[in-house]
Amino acid sequence: MPDLMPVLARADQNLPSSLDKLFELLRIKSISTDPAYKDDCRKAAEWLVDYLRDIGFDASVRTTPGHPMVVAHHDGAAPSAPHVLFYGHYDVQPVDPIELWDNDPFEPSVQEAAGGRKILTGRGTADDKGQLMTFVEACRAYKDINGALPVRVTILFEGEEESGSPSLKPFLEANAAELKADYALVCDTSMWDRDTPAIAAALRGLVGEEVVVTAADRDLHSGLFGGAAANPIHILTRILAGLHDDTGRITLDGFYNGVEETPANIKASWETLGLTTEGFLGEVGLSVPSGEKGRSVLELTWARPTAEVNGIWGGYTGEGFKTVIAAKASAKISFRLVGTQDPDAIRDSFRAYVRSRLPADCSVEFHPHGGSPAIHLSYDSPVLTKAKTALSDEWPKPAVVIGMGGSIPIVGDFQNMLGMESLLVGFGLSDDRIHSPNEKYELTSYHKGIRSWIRIMEALAA
Amino acid sequence: MPDLMPVLARADQNLPSSLDKLFELLRIKSISTDPAYKDDCRKAAEWLVDYLRDIGFDASVRTTPGHPMVVAHHDGAAPSAPHVLFYGHYDVQPVDPIELWDNDPFEPSVQEAAGGRKILTGRGTADDKGQLMTFVEACRAYKDINGALPVRVTILFEGEEESGSPSLKPFLEANAAELKADYALVCDTSMWDRDTPAIAAALRGLVGEEVVVTAADRDLHSGLFGGAAANPIHILTRILAGLHDDTGRITLDGFYNGVEETPANIKASWETLGLTTEGFLGEVGLSVPSGEKGRSVLELTWARPTAEVNGIWGGYTGEGFKTVIAAKASAKISFRLVGTQDPDAIRDSFRAYVRSRLPADCSVEFHPHGGSPAIHLSYDSPVLTKAKTALSDEWPKPAVVIGMGGSIPIVGDFQNMLGMESLLVGFGLSDDRIHSPNEKYELTSYHKGIRSWIRIMEALAA
Repeated sequence: MPDLMPVLARADQNLPSSLDKLFELLRIKSISTDPAYKDDCRKAAEWLVDYLRDIGFDASVRTTPGHPMVVAHHDGAAPSAPHVLFYGHYDVQPVDPIELWDNDPFEPSVQEAAGGRKILTGRGTADDKGQLMTFVEACRAYKDINGALPVRVTILFEGEEESGSPSLKPFLEANAAELKADYALVCDTSMWDRDTPAIAAALRGLVGEEVVVTAADRDLHSGLFGGAAANPIHILTRILAGLHDDTGRITLDGFYNGVEETPANIKASWETLGLTTEGFLGEVGLSVPSGEKGRSVLELTWARPTAEVNGIWGGYTGEGFKTVIAAKASAKISFRLVGTQDPDAIRDSFRAYVRSRLPADCSVEFHPHGGSPAIHLSYDSPVLTKAKTALSDEWPKPAVVIGMGGSIPIVGDFQNMLGMESLLVGFGLSDDRIHSPNEKYELTSYHKGIRSWIRIMEALAA
Repeated sequence: MPDLMPVLARADQNLPSSLDKLFELLRIKSISTDPAYKDDCRKAAEWLVDYLRDIGFDASVRTTPGHPMVVAHHDGAAPSAPHVLFYGHYDVQPVDPIELWDNDPFEPSVQEAAGGRKILTGRGTADDKGQLMTFVEACRAYKDINGALPVRVTILFEGEEESGSPSLKPFLEANAAELKADYALVCDTSMWDRDTPAIAAALRGLVGEEVVVTAADRDLHSGLFGGAAANPIHILTRILAGLHDDTGRITLDGFYNGVEETPANIKASWETLGLTTEGFLGEVGLSVPSGEKGRSVLELTWARPTAEVNGIWGGYTGEGFKTVIAAKASAKISFRLVGTQDPDAIRDSFRAYVRSRLPADCSVEFHPHGGSPAIHLSYDSPVLTKAKTALSDEWPKPAVVIGMGGSIPIVGDFQNMLGMESLLVGFGLSDDRIHSPNEKYELTSYHKGIRSWIRIMEALAA
């Protein structure tokens, strides 16, 4: 590999400007889920196109009914070289509760952390702007040294990943010929730990659902009506409390259809990772596993389905007290799926369950927020093997192949719509606080992430 | 009763200016529960003092650690005349959700309603500014004609009734000699129906409690932690759902201590009132009684205790979706009490129940929001009998003696601290939407309310 060392050295030299560019992108408030930030999302897409053009990509902003896509091509590699589609997302999560941030979420900074580590702070550092920029900066270092990339590269950056990706499927469908590659590289996942890179080969699916229960046609005084009039908060809490039985299993009809027990050899390989309940939950101040009884935390988060209430609200929630019986109560609920669980069937089962528990004089509305099945990738493809070696060369410990509790619906779409498997490599850590206040990304993740992609591209070309 | 007719006629002549004065008071945003309106509360107290002085009262604003009291005396009556303490409250409920109001809640107006009725719109029209002004305007009409009142009158207006009255007991204690009268007149209740005045002789007590459940030490990503980490919304919904059993009874240990079955003769008298479940619930778009099975809606709202969740919140409640497991979830809960239920014992039992259902790695905080026992007044005192006749003379149908689902803790305080019974007369209607958007008060309630107090004062003096 004669070309590799100068490219890696160049990535090291580039690091200060790589940080400057990342910070420019982080300052753009591209919160996709909140319509107030629509223009910021477009601004982030335009910034990426401008920068990719600077590096030599043929890049463009592609309008959708929602936030725009960024598509870029680089044709410098040999026609016989493999063709990869790199995917990332430039949109970020909302920042509330804003008062819990130590620093402005949109004014990124480099901070000193425990043990002399350097961390990059701000919304999107880890999810996913910092991660997608590892690949962009890998390409820049390559171009700087060799004038070309070792593989043919198409880039797809999405701006709706945090809001259910409504425009993604139509876009893939309309642009299938342009986007189809030999396989996809997806950078939106985590390392196993600080020293151990990881490739994710199983991802849970996701069903998002909002439910609004309406009782009386107005808010009522609890003195005048309490004890006689239906309280929608009571109804909703009974519905939500009934989603799990005493053993932590989910009670919806047919919910476990398609859920297989994890094979013993896979469970055994997870046990070698040395993760304990104390270690996993202790990091966030907890100690008691909350889900199905008798299963390890790895099994619970990688291989078992869940039902989680992500938000609930109703009645008077301000200062002081108000003796009101609300007219409405609402919740946002998500289901994580595994195996071959069917998102549509689970949504239907949930709605039937809610309706069956509703008093005759109350009504319910449902608002869907996306759905995608679980993903399973092959553990022994040549691409995965090459990437594993490349990552093991860069990091202190050898790479491991893991499952993931999160959902990356794009991987299923690539599989189903473009007939393309994905390689999921990311450099996040479990304490990055993605989706929470004080999101951060290790400077090491950024720096060695860039170097990792250089090694992976080289390995794929070999 | 030589003096009565000219005074009633004067009240009729005064009505336009009585409305003007009421509207001045209604425009003051005296929301006691929200610290942002502290100055407005004081402004309302000052406005009342100024006006009472105009009428000839010796009135003053009395500072407390919370919102001020208004105390006023009128000494024109014969020393042998009975001495009454009139109580009302000048503070009002918050106005959210503001978008559901048809008119500005603090810009009162007279509107035409169904059947050519006139209604007064705005926050506080019925609860309690419009009601307390019926008494003030009755006094004004009396003074205009006779130069004096037929009874000795002390007035006490409170500014914290909607926020648990924290300053009231210390104030009564410190000013007992000044405030003690033969009995209290309280105007904060409703008519039986549009044509039928009512005197309330039983009031439910109230315990208010806020509960905050904390699980992890930060918000978590439901993909990374879902299925393994405790979700405080789940814990809270299970706790709240478990407050009632399948028959609608409340499950707290010892909750029904002190709750007696309603005597058959009282139940029989309620049945003559002709209230149906369909009529009561149908008015607010409901049809199924929600509380204990096998009891009438009157029994449920007048004679049975309740547990109601008045507000709940946790996790992501904004636009779109956020796959978060919240660190905290909160609820505001109130219990309505009857018989001799002990507010402190019920608060303790609730807290013990919550703690018993909390996983070992979660914690809970409680914030009390007031507590008062239920009140039972005698159904056959001479004062009540006189008032009943006076009301029956004014309204199309004879007055009835009823129970009330709401709580007016002051009545218990008058009883316990000043050894004084209360006469509860009010002119609200069940569709006044107190505590809700579009609160209103019938013009008839205001006008005939003023005339009713003239008749009652005259009857008490006789």
